[in-house]
Amino acid sequence: MTISALTKVSEQLCFGGRQIRFTHTSTVLSCDMQFSVFLPPQAEHGKVPALYWLSGLTCTDENFSSKAGAQRIAAELGIALIMPDTSPRGDGVPDDPDGAYDFGLGAGFYVNATAAPYATHYHMYDYIVTELPQLLEQHLPLSDKRAITGHSMGGHGALVIGLRNSERYRSISAFSPICNPVACPWGIKAFSGYLGDDKSQWQQYDASVLLAVAQDPQPLLVDQGTADSFYPEQLRTDNLIAAAKQSAVPAEIRLQAGYDHSYYFIASFIEQHLRFHARYLFD
Amino acid sequence: MTISALTKVSEQLCFGGRQIRFTHTSTVLSCDMQFSVFLPPQAEHGKVPALYWLSGLTCTDENFSSKAGAQRIAAELGIALIMPDTSPRGDGVPDDPDGAYDFGLGAGFYVNATAAPYATHYHMYDYIVTELPQLLEQHLPLSDKRAITGHSMGGHGALVIGLRNSERYRSISAFSPICNPVACPWGIKAFSGYLGDDKSQWQQYDASVLLAVAQDPQPLLVDQGTADSFYPEQLRTDNLIAAAKQSAVPAEIRLQAGYDHSYYFIASFIEQHLRFHARYLFD
Repeated sequence: MTISALTKVSEQLCFGGRQIRFTHTSTVLSCDMQFSVFLPPQAEHGKVPALYWLSGLTCTDENFSSKAGAQRIAAELGIALIMPDTSPRGDGVPDDPDGAYDFGLGAGFYVNATAAPYATHYHMYDYIVTELPQLLEQHLPLSDKRAITGHSMGGHGALVIGLRNSERYRSISAFSPICNPVACPWGIKAFSGYLGDDKSQWQQYDASVLLAVAQDPQPLLVDQGTADSFYPEQLRTDNLIAAAKQSAVPAEIRLQAGYDHSYYFIASFIEQHLRFHARYLFD
Repeated sequence: MTISALTKVSEQLCFGGRQIRFTHTSTVLSCDMQFSVFLPPQAEHGKVPALYWLSGLTCTDENFSSKAGAQRIAAELGIALIMPDTSPRGDGVPDDPDGAYDFGLGAGFYVNATAAPYATHYHMYDYIVTELPQLLEQHLPLSDKRAITGHSMGGHGALVIGLRNSERYRSISAFSPICNPVACPWGIKAFSGYLGDDKSQWQQYDASVLLAVAQDPQPLLVDQGTADSFYPEQLRTDNLIAAAKQSAVPAEIRLQAGYDHSYYFIASFIEQHLRFHARYLFD
């Protein structure tokens, strides 16, 4: 089935709603892309708000849909879940020269790349902020009420995209986000490759930098497990907490004792995140 | 860490409980095995009852633990989840001659094989009924209150093992079970290979045969999706319904409109199954 520019790959009933996988040709990424959507039962009768989930390194659109258990709560609340892929894909898309997991395919870092050879395809920022919502709100029963969340690299993406587009997202949350990519190994590698050596260009994609100067940002919830093997070196949660204090933003940044970086952690707290977003999506 | 005969591979916090993976050397299977356990928070303070989950073709102990979302309810109710593998494993274990997905590794069918070359290792019936509970109740905070459930091939296993051991399992449930393996392609292939051509030996592993003559069996709940691509040819749910009528067993066998064979279906109804079992595990 093709809905104009969207081709449905599969559809499965889940908690009375529709778990659907689509492909389409992305203009800003210059390649074919897959993504998943969960439409709650309420979408049969009218437009529903949407929560965007941005996944972490190595993930596709399927990790969150299969492992987080979010559909149960989304079906109860009447919220659509939008699950994009984590990078451009396909034969023409350049990967990490060494095939590393933390750069290139599966690791788009939600930036608009400016450095060769990545600048042609790696525009995940524009894809998430502009192209995908426009496409979805044209073809699916979605209102323009949006919220954004994600995990690890996707937590970084959610924080950055949310904070930079306060008119487009009513609330922001994140699990185990990369909070200060300009100051951690993952972020330094990614930003060097995608953006080049001019570090002034990196700042626009750093949640701690953005939050420190944020004026009246959206409600913000972050959960970080203390048994996470990437905490604190890669994630730098303390720097996000410091930035929130600096700007007097009432962000709720919680350390969850004993939890790790996995979907067992996400599943344990996803209900609280959906109920948090529901407060603002239905406001 | 080794608990006598159990070696812990990993442990992750999940909904306040402990998601643990163990390895051990199985006596009845003559090979090393992996399995997963979820211990709810209540297990820190005393023994808890256990629900055994038997998985389907191609699965390991990890499909249910990562995709079903059962830990949330198990943590609330105080029930341990036991997730075994689906066959013996290892270099010395014979597989399907053609490497097919529906026989051999990942497809033990929960029988005690009697035909060569499978009779040496393929004793999943004894492993599930005897060895694993004995090992777990010796080393983990589990009571001897047990229930059993599973999916597809594992739904077949749960029904057969439950019905044949009414003193060991207080309640039985299944998702999309292979209800009448002596009369479907999957079952005929498996039973021919594991048990040989004497079809009188197959009857003891057929849920419809067993249920038709059951005397006062345990409470029984079955869910089957009507959009399941294996329904009805492989699953033969109608024969289980007929068997329940024949023996006047008050089994609840439900057709769920529009659901398929996937974990999206299991996730949608696992809460109802856990609450069903809780009624009898805490009786």
